[in-house]
Amino acid sequence: MASTFGTIFTVATFGESHGKGVGAIVDGCPARLSLSEADIQPQLDRRRPGQNNLTTPRDESDKVSILSGVEQGVTLGSPIGLFVPNRDSRPSDYGNMRNVPRPSHADYTYQMKYGVRAGSGGGRSSARETIGRVAAGAIAEKLLRVVYGVEIVAWVSAVGDVETTGVDAHTVTRAQVDETLVRCAHAPVADRMIAAIREAKDANDSIGGVVSCVCRGVPAGWGEPVFDKLEAKLAQAMLSLPATKGFEIGSGFAGTRLRGSQHNDPYVMQGERLGSPTNRSGGVQGGLSSGEPIVFRVAFKPPATIGVAQSTVDFDGKDVVLEAKGRHDPCVVPRAIPIVEAMAALVLADAALLQLRHGVIQ
Amino acid sequence: MASTFGTIFTVATFGESHGKGVGAIVDGCPARLSLSEADIQPQLDRRRPGQNNLTTPRDESDKVSILSGVEQGVTLGSPIGLFVPNRDSRPSDYGNMRNVPRPSHADYTYQMKYGVRAGSGGGRSSARETIGRVAAGAIAEKLLRVVYGVEIVAWVSAVGDVETTGVDAHTVTRAQVDETLVRCAHAPVADRMIAAIREAKDANDSIGGVVSCVCRGVPAGWGEPVFDKLEAKLAQAMLSLPATKGFEIGSGFAGTRLRGSQHNDPYVMQGERLGSPTNRSGGVQGGLSSGEPIVFRVAFKPPATIGVAQSTVDFDGKDVVLEAKGRHDPCVVPRAIPIVEAMAALVLADAALLQLRHGVIQ
Amino acid sequence: MASTFGTIFTVATFGESHGKGVGAIVDGCPARLSLSEADIQPQLDRRRPGQNNLTTPRDESDKVSILSGVEQGVTLGSPIGLFVPNRDSRPSDYGNMRNVPRPSHADYTYQMKYGVRAGSGGGRSSARETIGRVAAGAIAEKLLRVVYGVEIVAWVSAVGDVETTGVDAHTVTRAQVDETLVRCAHAPVADRMIAAIREAKDANDSIGGVVSCVCRGVPAGWGEPVFDKLEAKLAQAMLSLPATKGFEIGSGFAGTRLRGSQHNDPYVMQGERLGSPTNRSGGVQGGLSSGEPIVFRVAFKPPATIGVAQSTVDFDGKDVVLEAKGRHDPCVVPRAIPIVEAMAALVLADAALLQLRHGVIQ
Amino acid sequence: MASTFGTIFTVATFGESHGKGVGAIVDGCPARLSLSEADIQPQLDRRRPGQNNLTTPRDESDKVSILSGVEQGVTLGSPIGLFVPNRDSRPSDYGNMRNVPRPSHADYTYQMKYGVRAGSGGGRSSARETIGRVAAGAIAEKLLRVVYGVEIVAWVSAVGDVETTGVDAHTVTRAQVDETLVRCAHAPVADRMIAAIREAKDANDSIGGVVSCVCRGVPAGWGEPVFDKLEAKLAQAMLSLPATKGFEIGSGFAGTRLRGSQHNDPYVMQGERLGSPTNRSGGVQGGLSSGEPIVFRVAFKPPATIGVAQSTVDFDGKDVVLEAKGRHDPCVVPRAIPIVEAMAALVLADAALLQLRHGVIQ
Repeated sequence: MASTFGTIFTVATFGESHGKGVGAIVDGCPARLSLSEADIQPQLDRRRPGQNNLTTPRDESDKVSILSGVEQGVTLGSPIGLFVPNRDSRPSDYGNMRNVPRPSHADYTYQMKYGVRAGSGGGRSSARETIGRVAAGAIAEKLLRVVYGVEIVAWVSAVGDVETTGVDAHTVTRAQVDETLVRCAHAPVADRMIAAIREAKDANDSIGGVVSCVCRGVPAGWGEPVFDKLEAKLAQAMLSLPATKGFEIGSGFAGTRLRGSQHNDPYVMQGERLGSPTNRSGGVQGGLSSGEPIVFRVAFKPPATIGVAQSTVDFDGKDVVLEAKGRHDPCVVPRAIPIVEAMAALVLADAALLQLRHGVIQ
Repeated sequence: MASTFGTIFTVATFGESHGKGVGAIVDGCPARLSLSEADIQPQLDRRRPGQNNLTTPRDESDKVSILSGVEQGVTLGSPIGLFVPNRDSRPSDYGNMRNVPRPSHADYTYQMKYGVRAGSGGGRSSARETIGRVAAGAIAEKLLRVVYGVEIVAWVSAVGDVETTGVDAHTVTRAQVDETLVRCAHAPVADRMIAAIREAKDANDSIGGVVSCVCRGVPAGWGEPVFDKLEAKLAQAMLSLPATKGFEIGSGFAGTRLRGSQHNDPYVMQGERLGSPTNRSGGVQGGLSSGEPIVFRVAFKPPATIGVAQSTVDFDGKDVVLEAKGRHDPCVVPRAIPIVEAMAALVLADAALLQLRHGVIQ
Repeated sequence: MASTFGTIFTVATFGESHGKGVGAIVDGCPARLSLSEADIQPQLDRRRPGQNNLTTPRDESDKVSILSGVEQGVTLGSPIGLFVPNRDSRPSDYGNMRNVPRPSHADYTYQMKYGVRAGSGGGRSSARETIGRVAAGAIAEKLLRVVYGVEIVAWVSAVGDVETTGVDAHTVTRAQVDETLVRCAHAPVADRMIAAIREAKDANDSIGGVVSCVCRGVPAGWGEPVFDKLEAKLAQAMLSLPATKGFEIGSGFAGTRLRGSQHNDPYVMQGERLGSPTNRSGGVQGGLSSGEPIVFRVAFKPPATIGVAQSTVDFDGKDVVLEAKGRHDPCVVPRAIPIVEAMAALVLADAALLQLRHGVIQ
Repeated sequence: MASTFGTIFTVATFGESHGKGVGAIVDGCPARLSLSEADIQPQLDRRRPGQNNLTTPRDESDKVSILSGVEQGVTLGSPIGLFVPNRDSRPSDYGNMRNVPRPSHADYTYQMKYGVRAGSGGGRSSARETIGRVAAGAIAEKLLRVVYGVEIVAWVSAVGDVETTGVDAHTVTRAQVDETLVRCAHAPVADRMIAAIREAKDANDSIGGVVSCVCRGVPAGWGEPVFDKLEAKLAQAMLSLPATKGFEIGSGFAGTRLRGSQHNDPYVMQGERLGSPTNRSGGVQGGLSSGEPIVFRVAFKPPATIGVAQSTVDFDGKDVVLEAKGRHDPCVVPRAIPIVEAMAALVLADAALLQLRHGVIQ
């Protein structure tokens, strides 16, 4: 099931970028959770295009409707259908590119896989597909917050060469993240990130970046021990996002340079439980949550759609020079924030419900 | 199904590090593949402990038996049962650590999840669990090689601070990799890597590293477009290995520093097909293979078991100083090579069989 | 995933009987299948209420919209979103029954499972949920017909005591089935079936029946050998329909009275292949299709909603006399015909695509 | 995953009838369940061949070993590996039948699916495959009994034309069932059943039968509402057993002859909960358990292996007369008892663990 994610708390998405709309079905959400569109819309608003001049000018209000699974403000335990119509699709923008596989887009690979592809835009490979994820993730987040007290906050930790290490994963809030247009939660660096994006944009070019994310309040013991380790599912979730090229948790690649005596997290008492505040492991041990904050980073490449002329070949192998006309973001990381949070929430909500089943024999 | 991986070509592993043995069931392997233990044992031999003085002294021959699914040298299409007995387990080594959760091991998280844990060693969190993966991966590899001509080669690209960029992913072979004890395929750097491991070992300490891997010959179009993108399944597969903290494909984290015009892979004709030899995308576009080599890197932390004394607390919160007595590797990356290859093979074999369905409508 | 069915060709349904509508997502349908709403609507029309005076008077046109996955008349390989709005829901009909669990309905069990239930009608347990199945099944059927030449025909073989054995499974067509209002394909018996339904209806009562179904043109070798035997998936599919109480394939329960020498199907040459025309096995052997027609029967109980007064208790245990006011069918089997066909198609389409993956090594 | 069953509590079986042995992996069993081989062996003993002169003379002790997942007498939460070696396989018995597909066996369909098949006996289609199910089912049963107080009892309710309706599903015990050689729990009829089997055996023939089963103590609310209805999973489970041709629950096929007013189960107070003692629904409503006993029946055809000469054709279409030499049961239902119980237990254990998630929102 290529478009379905999760074992118990599941989401299945559907919809192409220039079709009637995009949506999702969330199945496995427990009954009696208070829920309405108002719980979902804020994250869609953070994700939607046209928010400001750092993003694509495609103008979509992205208003979500709940089609099923909720009655009188509470979930019924049945599948929750979600739908967001497409309003501002412009298939004609893509007419002249029909026979040219755009470099570093999925045009070529979709054509090779399916023998056909959506006539305009990225179809399913468009970032519009993530709307279903964000809507579903908002439900997962509500469940995690209400029942378990879990908080998830992502922020932009790098744009091109501009990095920040000034964000405290223990305390950062979404309000702080949203204070800067670029969503980096560290004002001194934000201006430089914004400048880097504007420079790329002015050059008809694009630029990459890194998103960091913390999940606080996850109790010890969530996750599965072998193939579905918590970090493995987070890695899958993040690398399933368009434009991602890397994932690291805790000490990540930098940790490979350390010795065990520098890297190990000794235990100390933290109130009633054992803790390991050095947390180089990033909140997981052996695939299971440790009770410490789960901290990870996701690499996003520069968007493939650029105005700069590119020398490439068409599907017949004939040389062409391509100047993309589709609307696009010069840098995806500011809008990726709610998407990363959504995927983290989907992984954790599923882990929470799976853990109920491992229930210990008393 | 926490211990099962794959949709069509599946593997389920079982067994604890100090129990009777470890094994796996491979289901979904096509019938009539020529197969015997001799196809599987070489990768187990590359993985087994006690190979040389860079690895743990635990001495296991790790001889595999095929229990089912093969008759007269060919697969029947039925589940292939695989078993490797444990010979040199020493539960008594762990007696004095029973009440101390070892720092950066899974003792604490397993106890929190299950309310019980294996009495010695890591149980399921031990690297011995990977034996089932390696055995299953060898079958996946044979299928990929015989039917599709796919080649998978991994090598050590960093130990601590010592890195190599001198390995050519287009040509490197396993024979070259195995020429150096540390499996780095680049002799000038190998000696420095070996020295780094020996230094760590002599200090009763451990050290991290990075494994790189290339999959050559994968045709365009394998993978799934949304949650099960090829890079997403590879990321899950790699982060499901013990001691891994990061995954990157193609340009990875470094690519986030580039502009789109620097990062995009223009197409050129390569014989009968389109290619993109700059391959910053690492062989995937939109979750599907592009026909270029798939290249990725995996971060392994320094092993948590070290002889250096560590100040920590026991399960009751009482201060203790722990000096581990269990046998262990000072650095896991040399032995991780066949494990990374196995997981890549499992991902690709499943993708290959999933892909068979597409394009049936002519 | 309680609301998802299938491994490769999958359907996920959503929607309550008195909500905004009902729908489904079909994932895994191969690309380039010619498809439009016109392929789906005819089976929905055969299923819809209010067709004639043997069915519920609830008046729904049940017009389907394809939301995604199809462009310019062909499938893209992406998820196919399907939606049918509810038009004639009357929640107020159920007001006075809110505190009474209707006998042999799911009110009580849903309340016990979820701690909440849809405020009117059956919610997800309503037969309206089957709309998503029928729409998805129509796509599965088209795939089976176009690519494999498979034909699926169901008919009413019993209403109460009135049975027909006069339908030839080798030749019966949907046109013949639809010639009689009761869809029995055997005119002499049809009138007696219709009379039985009318008698029940006139008595404010309901009556049960049996649906038979044949799948012709299925090649030998579809199905899986153990838990997902073809007959096992058909049995699951049929018993997942509301109001079903039994399933039998081939000789069924009657075959238990025979000796092996009477029951066995000897092989004979049939053109190029082996056949077993006695076909007491019903087109399957060992869980796999044999190449003979697959023939099975499904038992439907009398509908639980009746106008006859029933002595029962409310949720608080207080005695009440219930006279149902909701609109309902006096007998479900005529409208169950396209539903049984849909579920058979979903099982077979998945088996067809799974079989591609077992592909034999040549 | 053709050889895997279940969502949370899962079993995967492996092994051919004339290979090294057969086994299973049980995954998802909660930790800290007291467990040893002694919990499993009794059901294997009830299943094993050679028990008495009503069964096949193949002599197998069928001693099970637990390979993993249990330590110091309790489950660890990790996969439980189970293995039973084959002792008395006689491949040579089948030599002369190699080119003849045995009528109503799976030789032909396996050959068509896989292009190869096990060289002797039924391979995976043999009843020996059910050993893994029985071993796994015994673990499921223990979990259900210890944690939930569920009891499962199956008995033979028909052999050929000889039927019993004299068994009380509310009270029947396994001890009563085992009092008669034929396991019918109703002595007056048992002798006639035994006679019917002996007559078939003496005629070198075989005979069919029906197994009934009751699951007592299942609380209301287990099961899933749509495709995975409890009756649907039971139907799949039972039709996945070799030689089964039908399944019915509660009133079954006979219930189709009733009117709603005769068939409905009114509610009454039963202690603290609502009950419906008429229980024509067989313990389920809308796919969910109702709290009443779950009662179902399974049809087993006469075994296909008979000594009577059969006129058939070989794989090349040449006429042959086949007289089977393999050892076989004249009637499978006495040995099917523990197998039916095992499959019921696997369905219910999975439903129990799935149900844990519901109602978390208080």
